[in-house]
Amino acid sequence: MDFPSKLIENAVGELARLPGIGKKTALRLALHLLKADTDTTASLAEALAKMRFEITYCRTCHSISDAEECSICANQLRDHAQVCVVADVRDVIAIENTGQYRGVYHVLGGVISPIEGVGPTDLHIDSLVERAAAEDSDVREVILAISPTMEGDTTAFYLSRRLRDLPNVHISTIARGIPMGGELEYADEITLGRSIVDRQRQVS
Amino acid sequence: MDFPSKLIENAVGELARLPGIGKKTALRLALHLLKADTDTTASLAEALAKMRFEITYCRTCHSISDAEECSICANQLRDHAQVCVVADVRDVIAIENTGQYRGVYHVLGGVISPIEGVGPTDLHIDSLVERAAAEDSDVREVILAISPTMEGDTTAFYLSRRLRDLPNVHISTIARGIPMGGELEYADEITLGRSIVDRQRQVS
Repeated sequence: MDFPSKLIENAVGELARLPGIGKKTALRLALHLLKADTDTTASLAEALAKMRFEITYCRTCHSISDAEECSICANQLRDHAQVCVVADVRDVIAIENTGQYRGVYHVLGGVISPIEGVGPTDLHIDSLVERAAAEDSDVREVILAISPTMEGDTTAFYLSRRLRDLPNVHISTIARGIPMGGELEYADEITLGRSIVDRQRQVS
Repeated sequence: MDFPSKLIENAVGELARLPGIGKKTALRLALHLLKADTDTTASLAEALAKMRFEITYCRTCHSISDAEECSICANQLRDHAQVCVVADVRDVIAIENTGQYRGVYHVLGGVISPIEGVGPTDLHIDSLVERAAAEDSDVREVILAISPTMEGDTTAFYLSRRLRDLPNVHISTIARGIPMGGELEYADEITLGRSIVDRQRQVS
């Protein structure tokens, strides 16, 4: 693409490096910013830079945080006996948005993936074990909330082996089954099979 | 959406103000920037701010430019007798990418649209007429390259009325017809009708 200005060419190039944004979309975004008042661009650029340079990670759960301890870990109204283990910060946000969970989290920072060269030591697994095994630990239940993919299942299996010898800690996994609104006939056999084996007694 | 950090909430909010970017995509972009090294975010923020604050508009054609005169207007190898009138900078880039045009441009900055409150005085129309009517003007042909929508046709009609009394200036319009690869049976009647009326003699 030929651009009439080096400045716009640079901006389009930088925007197009973002995932899912091609050259055409990047140009549309750049021209939108040029049409809007200067404050729009200034506050966007400032918010991005501030986020990148000032954000830290919670020393307890490794989630993104504005302070040394994140707002969830610092909240004494939450149940510190339950720790929900997730791969990513995105999963924390997704679970928080359900409004169904009042415990705390532990963010692994990914899943075990030999193909991508991610081993157990690259993830926050040791700190999870330490957290659950500490003498003054409040942790009574570790909920594995990891996507049921090949890598996710490997990670969950590894975690349950590392955690199984802790005497006072139960390990659980989020329920798998037919999603709400899903049709039985289109469900894959493994999901449908698990949903029968793990059936729940009807509460009347 | 609940965010574990105000910094990321701000960044997501700013990103989600861009056209075509929702909250979920904005979060994905923000987390991508957090995973990438700090240089990525720094150069993105800098490129956007530099573009917005340093870009100017060419005093002749009103296209975006790094200097008082844009690189196309300043290029003496281009044919300054032909002026292609377009609505938007995006159209300049699209026509430049065809490699078929060696003249110069005039960017209106939009089209006449009574519904959106855009009248002829809100566009760079007077400066086009001055440019074509000036005593030392090189302009011999004005090519109207405006999208054939309701507003575009209104704008083109208005322009041809403003320009028709200039003695040495021809007015032309980009060809309308069946697009390359288009199927006749799916073309609308107006396009197909125009393509028959405006048929071209086969050059053998």
